Amino acid sequence: MVDNQIVIVGTGRVATHLSARLQYLGSNVCQIVGRSLTNTKKIASQFANCDAILSYSKISTTANYYIIAVSDDAIMGVAENLAAYLPETAFVVHTSGSVSSTVFAPHFKNYGVLYPLQSFSNETLPDWQTLPICIHTNNDLKINDLRFFAERLSPKVFIVDDKQRASLHIAAVFANNFTNHLFVLAESICQKEQLSFDILRPLIIETARKIQYLSPNLAQTGPAVRGDKATMQRHIDYLEKHHDRVLGELYTLISADIQQNIK
Amino acid sequence: MVDNQIVIVGTGRVATHLSARLQYLGSNVCQIVGRSLTNTKKIASQFANCDAILSYSKISTTANYYIIAVSDDAIMGVAENLAAYLPETAFVVHTSGSVSSTVFAPHFKNYGVLYPLQSFSNETLPDWQTLPICIHTNNDLKINDLRFFAERLSPKVFIVDDKQRASLHIAAVFANNFTNHLFVLAESICQKEQLSFDILRPLIIETARKIQYLSPNLAQTGPAVRGDKATMQRHIDYLEKHHDRVLGELYTLISADIQQNIK
Repeated sequence: MVDNQIVIVGTGRVATHLSARLQYLGSNVCQIVGRSLTNTKKIASQFANCDAILSYSKISTTANYYIIAVSDDAIMGVAENLAAYLPETAFVVHTSGSVSSTVFAPHFKNYGVLYPLQSFSNETLPDWQTLPICIHTNNDLKINDLRFFAERLSPKVFIVDDKQRASLHIAAVFANNFTNHLFVLAESICQKEQLSFDILRPLIIETARKIQYLSPNLAQTGPAVRGDKATMQRHIDYLEKHHDRVLGELYTLISADIQQNIK
Repeated sequence: MVDNQIVIVGTGRVATHLSARLQYLGSNVCQIVGRSLTNTKKIASQFANCDAILSYSKISTTANYYIIAVSDDAIMGVAENLAAYLPETAFVVHTSGSVSSTVFAPHFKNYGVLYPLQSFSNETLPDWQTLPICIHTNNDLKINDLRFFAERLSPKVFIVDDKQRASLHIAAVFANNFTNHLFVLAESICQKEQLSFDILRPLIIETARKIQYLSPNLAQTGPAVRGDKATMQRHIDYLEKHHDRVLGELYTLISADIQQNIK
């Protein structure tokens, strides 16, 4: 990895955390490409002999990996810009969960995906020892190179093709975004009764902790799985009376599906 | 607390963890009341001079606290049985999140609730330092006694009346049971694509961890909050084609509510 020259395109959260990890591993990142000089210089300054560049015309044409860590919408444009300066044989990967790797097909012969499946935040460092990295290459001869590269970043590397990754992204929306929205609704119920959301925080972490070793199918508790109809009806009546329509609808829909699931 | 005599009714998970905590604190539990001699003896054996009893006729009439840690449906029957042998002035509390304290009103003058809000499991010990305990008494003169008692168990004691506790229980259904069901659905999406659910586990724990210090309103990410209609439509199309109807319905309903929430 020390011998591989790496170019990173992007200065957002994924680019920032990825470059910090590569710096920790002593990797040879030779260029950071960004739109803002300040941000680009900030990331580049982590590495010895790394240039912060704003123009694709200055891009190194001999790097072993071009990692495109930009927003989903920007990937296609970046690929076009790179194609104007890089040889067709350059190995380019993006870090997105939802964009197909074939976005590179019109321009490059070797391409792939290096998707770190985590919700990165500016405040905390990710735990790279447990962070899953999903990789894919269009060219089977390249997969072992990319796997070796990814396994330096994290021991949890999974080979996931475009179709699987699209589904995985949907699963992640349920497990992360939708779950977070249930926390939003739980907080709104607490607020209505002048209750501190702190009362629920330990339950939330325990719910997630259980799932680290159990299948969620085995972890279910509560009125729906017990078939406690009286309690469910009382809950629905309360929600319909005191809250937005959607809370009662969600209660009914999810409870029915929990019961369906145990049949 | 050492001087207070305590009787525990019940031998389930809450009774087991509560009695282990009381044993750790050196409390004077004098009787465990249960239906199964084996289970009752097992819990009683933790305490010096504690009797395992199967018949209410043998219950101590002089204890300071009678803690009823049985299933929701059984509380009313236990209250009636206790009433046949205890003085009307005995102080009885139950540990349920959803049963009103007024279940005791026909039989006792001093009653209340000691509700530890956590999902107890047989496999792991709860963290009592962070475990929220919701307390309530019908008699204001008793609340400080119960608060003092509860604060020995955990530093996180909240005074929560019957109406608030009923709502809190609904919030807990969203934050725990419904969240767990989203994990079930995420796992089913993974299974359909031969993907290991392990890929999502670190994301799940991170989603819960963020909420320990942030309001969930500030933690939301994903296609719905970004207003990324193309991705949402692609997800819904995939779910409608490959999964049960309910997944597409939930996707649509929750995404719309996430968007409603940012307005």
